[in-house]
Amino acid sequence: MSQAPLDFYFDFISPFGYFASLGIDELAARHGRRVIWRPMLLGISVLKVMGLKPLLDTPLKGDYIERSVARHARLHGLELRRRPRDTFMNPLPPARAYYWLLAQDADPTAGLAKRAAQAIYHAYWAEGRDMGQVDELAAVLAPLGIAEADLRDALVDPRIAQGLRDAVDASLQRGVFGSPFIIADGEPFWGNETLPLLDLWLSRGGW
Amino acid sequence: MSQAPLDFYFDFISPFGYFASLGIDELAARHGRRVIWRPMLLGISVLKVMGLKPLLDTPLKGDYIERSVARHARLHGLELRRRPRDTFMNPLPPARAYYWLLAQDADPTAGLAKRAAQAIYHAYWAEGRDMGQVDELAAVLAPLGIAEADLRDALVDPRIAQGLRDAVDASLQRGVFGSPFIIADGEPFWGNETLPLLDLWLSRGGW
Repeated sequence: MSQAPLDFYFDFISPFGYFASLGIDELAARHGRRVIWRPMLLGISVLKVMGLKPLLDTPLKGDYIERSVARHARLHGLELRRRPRDTFMNPLPPARAYYWLLAQDADPTAGLAKRAAQAIYHAYWAEGRDMGQVDELAAVLAPLGIAEADLRDALVDPRIAQGLRDAVDASLQRGVFGSPFIIADGEPFWGNETLPLLDLWLSRGGW
Repeated sequence: MSQAPLDFYFDFISPFGYFASLGIDELAARHGRRVIWRPMLLGISVLKVMGLKPLLDTPLKGDYIERSVARHARLHGLELRRRPRDTFMNPLPPARAYYWLLAQDADPTAGLAKRAAQAIYHAYWAEGRDMGQVDELAAVLAPLGIAEADLRDALVDPRIAQGLRDAVDASLQRGVFGSPFIIADGEPFWGNETLPLLDLWLSRGGW
């Protein structure tokens, strides 16, 4: 049985990615597996590669997505302070901050980067705070011991920006086109509703 | 608790619609519910309304769909004689035949139309037969007592063609944009992987 970590791809602006983030590590742990979180840029990058317009601007599908987010939140007792059609934040600051932190983590499956991503997701979706604003982002990350000056330096560092571009390119190379999107031992699982299938896959070691 | 039938929308050219068709009546029956099947034209009509290219021609997503179909088939022990990227059949003859038969059924949830749809889906996906060819379609429907001459008359009857157009228009009015797509008491469920969610919805009477 493989012990390689799972890769969990998501966009901070994706509510379904947020929902998946709340349970993905626990799901993996049931099978003795760990998870590397890998934020990507679905809205401002991947959909362009696919030649698609934003999901919420797609006739018929946009309304379904809005309804589906509310349905999921009600089912799981989640209070959201942001709605799918609210103006997106700029996802670059949180995504850059994530990879900046990840590069310093000894364990990419359980370090400061993941705790920061959890804090960012919670602040954005559950509290409605704009994580694209550096002031707000810094305020959310400060309790984790991340100094605002260091964060500000990282966010204007061209190597950090390039690191995010490389991460997005790598995700595209692996066929990632949605959020959430999990790859387990090379097998891709797209969407929150495939998590039970991923669970089954891990319990059987594939089929 | 509502006893209204569920509406099961699908396209005969959709493998995920085929997969859902194998279990949707049983799922509904567990909750004392029945199902009306409603073929639509995802590929040649609905995607145009949405402004989307065919799913299999969408970068990244096309490969995932192909893989996902094979994975589902392996999991459920289904032998498919057709692959997602094989040339589509013309879905008009089977869809027109369906609504022609439905109009004659005393019970739209359990009549000849549904048996015909099941036979068509099986012949197309499990046997690889081209249900867009009237000869082949007639051969598949003959064992159900459907006379080839009557079928041929129906397939060139402009009222039958209009009936299908009206059905597709009605599906769009209800927000249907995928296959399978189930509506239960006004609540939409898109995709094969939402069937467990539909199951939960029916058991709880919604949430």
